[in-house]
Amino acid sequence: MRARAREAGYDALVAFSQDNVTYTAGFLVPSHATNRFRRTITVIAGDTFACEIVVSVEEKQAIARSRFRDIRAYDQFSENPADVLADALIEAGAAKGQIAIELDYMPAIDFLHLKRRLPDATFVECKELYFRARMIKTDEEVGIIRKVGLLTEQVMHEAIKDIRVGMTEIDVARFLVDRMIAGGSTNFKYRVGSGVNSSITNCGTTHKKIEAGDIIRIEVLGDLDNYRSNVTRTAVVGKPTERQRSVLAKLIQAREICKTMLKPGTPVSELYRAYVAACRQNGIEPTLRFLGHGIGQTIHEEPYITDTRDIVLERNITFTMEPLYMMPGEMGFHVEDMYVVTADGYDTITGNISNNDELIEVG
Amino acid sequence: MRARAREAGYDALVAFSQDNVTYTAGFLVPSHATNRFRRTITVIAGDTFACEIVVSVEEKQAIARSRFRDIRAYDQFSENPADVLADALIEAGAAKGQIAIELDYMPAIDFLHLKRRLPDATFVECKELYFRARMIKTDEEVGIIRKVGLLTEQVMHEAIKDIRVGMTEIDVARFLVDRMIAGGSTNFKYRVGSGVNSSITNCGTTHKKIEAGDIIRIEVLGDLDNYRSNVTRTAVVGKPTERQRSVLAKLIQAREICKTMLKPGTPVSELYRAYVAACRQNGIEPTLRFLGHGIGQTIHEEPYITDTRDIVLERNITFTMEPLYMMPGEMGFHVEDMYVVTADGYDTITGNISNNDELIEVG
Repeated sequence: MRARAREAGYDALVAFSQDNVTYTAGFLVPSHATNRFRRTITVIAGDTFACEIVVSVEEKQAIARSRFRDIRAYDQFSENPADVLADALIEAGAAKGQIAIELDYMPAIDFLHLKRRLPDATFVECKELYFRARMIKTDEEVGIIRKVGLLTEQVMHEAIKDIRVGMTEIDVARFLVDRMIAGGSTNFKYRVGSGVNSSITNCGTTHKKIEAGDIIRIEVLGDLDNYRSNVTRTAVVGKPTERQRSVLAKLIQAREICKTMLKPGTPVSELYRAYVAACRQNGIEPTLRFLGHGIGQTIHEEPYITDTRDIVLERNITFTMEPLYMMPGEMGFHVEDMYVVTADGYDTITGNISNNDELIEVG
Repeated sequence: MRARAREAGYDALVAFSQDNVTYTAGFLVPSHATNRFRRTITVIAGDTFACEIVVSVEEKQAIARSRFRDIRAYDQFSENPADVLADALIEAGAAKGQIAIELDYMPAIDFLHLKRRLPDATFVECKELYFRARMIKTDEEVGIIRKVGLLTEQVMHEAIKDIRVGMTEIDVARFLVDRMIAGGSTNFKYRVGSGVNSSITNCGTTHKKIEAGDIIRIEVLGDLDNYRSNVTRTAVVGKPTERQRSVLAKLIQAREICKTMLKPGTPVSELYRAYVAACRQNGIEPTLRFLGHGIGQTIHEEPYITDTRDIVLERNITFTMEPLYMMPGEMGFHVEDMYVVTADGYDTITGNISNNDELIEVG
């Protein structure tokens, strides 16, 4: 990050978001995730300056677990973290410099305060800087992402096998969640939608009972060591109808065409266009305006696989592809797996345990 | 909210945060909670204008579930939600007016864009406006908070009963989480810390095995229908030592003094001072700079019970008291319950199922 900041001519690099702070400091401050009134901030400047600003309640944990040795705690009720930040930037010699800062995340009020404290500084966005850096994973990061992907897929595979008519969506979720926690995940989300609920993109998980003939869409967003997984499966209770079978077949066919393009050098916009073209040729219009998304410290990150992105695949980019087709008020089809770009192609991170290229028959 | 905005002389009221958007629109947009790149915004203006701005992926859910009929969807990749907001404010006749907006949450970049679009508008903070409104719950809100509090306390009571030497912290969490999901909670957090881990305020939940003599601190942050609970219990495996027994007794004694002060008209600063004075008289210094906090759509909200707040208790304020004392590297003591202010005193929302005023003996 230092090298990238220097290259871009920035005197300091400031992160506010959970993901960029965690990426920089190497650990997630617990209440950063649950309490929006407590800011956590990292500052990197010049060749050596690096500090992390945390609420005093978290000071001990930050000292024990942060990659940074310079931890600056503020009292939530009597001190303004934006002042601690201004002081750090002055100390780092960046008061009159170019400060790359998360304008897309930092609260406007902190920005206004910082501008008053540092009237001679210039503030520039750093969204792209962080995203481009985070997009290319280290081998160690890929290792963690593989681990959380595998855990998620295994847990889902086991949960789906056991689905029976009469269970509720919440029953399925209880199994999923128990196994995710047992596997060390702490910050997961899940969505189990059956019947009509499967046609709602980010549906809730309800007490609805699973019935014969239901399509069941299960999505799990897992985590291990601050890295995320995102896997989705579509199952049917009993035998699929010809119509159900054929919709999924069309989506999978479009995705398979994209798989042949997965290698360094492929623009993500071409992937998306190939996907849309294949779907349309099969007579269906994709429900989402993207085929998939990068995955790492956040569920969604770059590269979004869509036609507005100028990103080209490189080795160690991790991402999902999630062909999705909703028939509102009826049912929804959605298969999502995780991939990593290799030196000359790609590896599947998930999608290896069982055959998900056809509707999974359960019950 | 309309009446409060009018009273304050504001032409429009704009919310960006999960909690204030949910409070206004009556439902949580799913990806608002998991994807920081997707903005959800509510706008209220004048006597009738009200719209909710959501990412297009969530449009159908918003139409089905929002309190607002005017739902405006934007495409995440080709449209700027700040533009949709600017258009809405112009349409609402607030382009040259005073706009109360969440400066403490809205990203700086959205603010800068909005200012360019509406150069003649004045922007003012609305943190206090929202917090003062949300602080006084309706009877319906109190009902939901009671429900989630009771669920949380019951689940914790059952989980603690079953703790045995040799179980891991994660084993305890699996039970907790399973029962929370079964009870309809979807967005909960938990912390199980045993032995030395109990002395870390927001500890993680680990594979550490529970041993004889361990202090175990269990905190659950539950949710039902977008309202939160926050309950903490401290247990000991086997018989407490005299030292353990006495630390908890001192905390509880201090809290009991505060309970006698719980009624409309009591300033929260006096509550906090009484707590600190009682602790000091007993020879311990409270670890946190607050005794508790309001609870509602967020875990922490006003009134923070601390000496920097000028808030006076009123009927239907819901809050926690959480006497907490950490002995770093050794163990931690922490009992947290939920309360509601009534017309002439208070009701305990949690703390009724069992005796938590002494260390809970388990194993």
